[in-house]
Amino acid sequence: MSNQKPSLPRGTRDFGPDKMVKRNFIFDTIKATFQKFGFMPLETPAMENLSVLTGKYGEEGDQLLYKILNSRPHEARDSEKEKMRQDFNRLLTQNTNSPVLTEKGLRYDLTVPFARYVVMNRNEIKFPFKRYQIQPVWRGDSPQKGRYREFYQCDADVVGTDSLLCEAEIVLMMNEVLSKLGIKDFTIKINNRKILTGIAEAVGSPGKEGDLCVAIDKLDKIGREKVEKELEERGFSRESVEKLNPVFSLKGSFAEQKKVLSELFASSETGRKGLEELGQVMQLVEAFEIGNTHLEFDTTLARGLSYYTGAIFEVKAHHVQIGSISGGGRYDNLTGSFGMPGISGVGFSFGVDRIYDVMEELNLFPQNNFTTTRVLFSHFDEAALLYTLPLLKQLRENGINSEVYPEAGKLKKQLDYANSKQIPFVVLVGSDEMASGKLTLKNMQIGSQQQVTLEELIKAVIL
Amino acid sequence: MSNQKPSLPRGTRDFGPDKMVKRNFIFDTIKATFQKFGFMPLETPAMENLSVLTGKYGEEGDQLLYKILNSRPHEARDSEKEKMRQDFNRLLTQNTNSPVLTEKGLRYDLTVPFARYVVMNRNEIKFPFKRYQIQPVWRGDSPQKGRYREFYQCDADVVGTDSLLCEAEIVLMMNEVLSKLGIKDFTIKINNRKILTGIAEAVGSPGKEGDLCVAIDKLDKIGREKVEKELEERGFSRESVEKLNPVFSLKGSFAEQKKVLSELFASSETGRKGLEELGQVMQLVEAFEIGNTHLEFDTTLARGLSYYTGAIFEVKAHHVQIGSISGGGRYDNLTGSFGMPGISGVGFSFGVDRIYDVMEELNLFPQNNFTTTRVLFSHFDEAALLYTLPLLKQLRENGINSEVYPEAGKLKKQLDYANSKQIPFVVLVGSDEMASGKLTLKNMQIGSQQQVTLEELIKAVIL
Repeated sequence: MSNQKPSLPRGTRDFGPDKMVKRNFIFDTIKATFQKFGFMPLETPAMENLSVLTGKYGEEGDQLLYKILNSRPHEARDSEKEKMRQDFNRLLTQNTNSPVLTEKGLRYDLTVPFARYVVMNRNEIKFPFKRYQIQPVWRGDSPQKGRYREFYQCDADVVGTDSLLCEAEIVLMMNEVLSKLGIKDFTIKINNRKILTGIAEAVGSPGKEGDLCVAIDKLDKIGREKVEKELEERGFSRESVEKLNPVFSLKGSFAEQKKVLSELFASSETGRKGLEELGQVMQLVEAFEIGNTHLEFDTTLARGLSYYTGAIFEVKAHHVQIGSISGGGRYDNLTGSFGMPGISGVGFSFGVDRIYDVMEELNLFPQNNFTTTRVLFSHFDEAALLYTLPLLKQLRENGINSEVYPEAGKLKKQLDYANSKQIPFVVLVGSDEMASGKLTLKNMQIGSQQQVTLEELIKAVIL
Repeated sequence: MSNQKPSLPRGTRDFGPDKMVKRNFIFDTIKATFQKFGFMPLETPAMENLSVLTGKYGEEGDQLLYKILNSRPHEARDSEKEKMRQDFNRLLTQNTNSPVLTEKGLRYDLTVPFARYVVMNRNEIKFPFKRYQIQPVWRGDSPQKGRYREFYQCDADVVGTDSLLCEAEIVLMMNEVLSKLGIKDFTIKINNRKILTGIAEAVGSPGKEGDLCVAIDKLDKIGREKVEKELEERGFSRESVEKLNPVFSLKGSFAEQKKVLSELFASSETGRKGLEELGQVMQLVEAFEIGNTHLEFDTTLARGLSYYTGAIFEVKAHHVQIGSISGGGRYDNLTGSFGMPGISGVGFSFGVDRIYDVMEELNLFPQNNFTTTRVLFSHFDEAALLYTLPLLKQLRENGINSEVYPEAGKLKKQLDYANSKQIPFVVLVGSDEMASGKLTLKNMQIGSQQQVTLEELIKAVIL
């Protein structure tokens, strides 16, 4: 096994220093915003019992779960081994669980572990419970561009309240995070599951909002005629399709669209409820007086329809060809599958990999940051090295990330090191500097050099 | 599978908000220190190829690796299934690798993935390379008090230089992290593998430093006579044991101990080299002028002897019954098993779970922090809610974590919520407050109440 060329599993990635600095900028911005809005951190284990995970993500999801082999099968008793063999043979014909072979799997998302946590801690948790969770998840999908087998999710949820203030604050958090990241042009699309239900009811096809959305979603691409044809293929009557006329021509402000839909919903209580909720969310967002809310009503927004019961959100950045960078919605029954019904909530998440790509493409990552080294001390012999150490200590005491090149090497080598780490300042210490007490400060970005005292150095480099 | 009581895998833990706030305080302190000393973050995937992991941790370690079952075995071709059956039968008799069944495993530590990263990126990395890495690892050990199957490691290493400045800076970082965490009483023990080798050579038992350490380590507990007996049982001659006399009675300052050992090492070049290195590290630490270095030479310190080739470190906190909270050392051959010899380095790590326990026991966690909510707005009707929203926005714009209770509920319920989240300030907003524009600020810690303007509120609560 040894002495071979090592490799990474397909669909997984290392994040070296350059990438980490940028990723942490995104994570830190998101965390700070979640915390500013009263969300508290939660972490759950990477390994969950398969009994917790299985059956929560549909048949396709079950196939993508990573299962962990139980430890030391060769130490099992003979009778257990026989059971293992049987279970293994079943595993070769169908995707089943076998606790004697594998009882644990890797986390597939952050929602199911959160639901498990809520159920296991129901007596200690004070509701409404606002938690955020930023951890990797694993899925045995075929890797392709932008799709990985190990990737971070970044969720925030409020459970145990149906206050629409939570929806409004999600809009605020999306705005705050993206503007802090420097992403200025984006749209937060909002819809409500009840409006989709209402439309299906109003056109005489109750329960068919799924088909409706799939078809309407293509309006921009294939045009109205083809959408209507697809709807008929999906079992909508000619009459139903005609009743959709006002939906196809929806435009203008929310108030204008609301007027059209209110008429359509004359006979759909659910539709009217959806419109009312949406209106209240809009009003609450306005009440915060944040200026441009970036919020836009979109009747065609669906997003994993089966899951959401109220508001639905999705955020797209402009000027880049990339899917949604954030999304979420309200759900009714977080913990029902663990025997604890009636826990509703609303949650959303940020797609960190996509946000990273957007920021890279728009060149939005800041030059200066608090992670990388600000100052490198460069020296040429033992005496100079010893001279720099108390100076180095004082820079660090002033909160300045700084280091001294550990060896007495050629200047070029030391400057190369500074450049490779993108260190903006190098302090040269030689016999002249030790004699005069004035340090030579080199600005690596503009190439200038000046003589400075320690105090001047600190002032010049501090962020 | 559904509707059952969910549970956690044995040896794994959830970290709820209370624990996360404390853990993040530790992680953030460590990260800030690593960065201040020029270390850059690295993250590697949780899943590594088993070919990378196997054979790196000894036979016992191989047994503890978590192996991940390859996806969708039931979709394999018949010939592959036959191979799987054969491999599975082998797995039931011995601990072997079978790529058709499992090709990936969970990270067991952070050192092997780091070595793999260095080898795979050898052409891009500029040495010396200073990286830190804070991620969970997994081991299929029997869980017991303080031993988990999933836990965080927290490593920093410099590779590609043998400068002893790196050792000195490790001592500084240990000091900085622990003092920032409020842990005042601790000892950083230091030794050098070459000194241990030198002692074994000097007493005429070259290569037996392992046995030597195991025995000497018990000096405090079982006394000198029994240690000498154990040494003889471990194959040391009566003569060798007698030559150890000066080692047994080592005491006093480093200079004094150095004098004794220098005499002993008259015939051991390795021993003299170890003493010299140790002296240089001590001198470099002193040159930083940090005051109390907490550094103490201990000839009996060994710590995974086979691995280290130079300095060895270990940190113990006083006043608590707990193992070492930090440790590390210099090694020669990080990447040799991946076919890239000659990469030496020095690294250390913090034991976050133990540091957590020490801080809990000594009550060192700070009351105020930047994670939890500072201010809760409490309101009693829709009008008051709408009134609070622009105020809430302004607090947040001032960087103050704040929230409004999302429902119009009883005051007691809202105050209970504040208490459960340890929110120190509650602002009451009712009709009086809206009429006067003065808010009622309740200090939850001391129970006092006062009327304040928004500006006064911000001043009163800001951290």
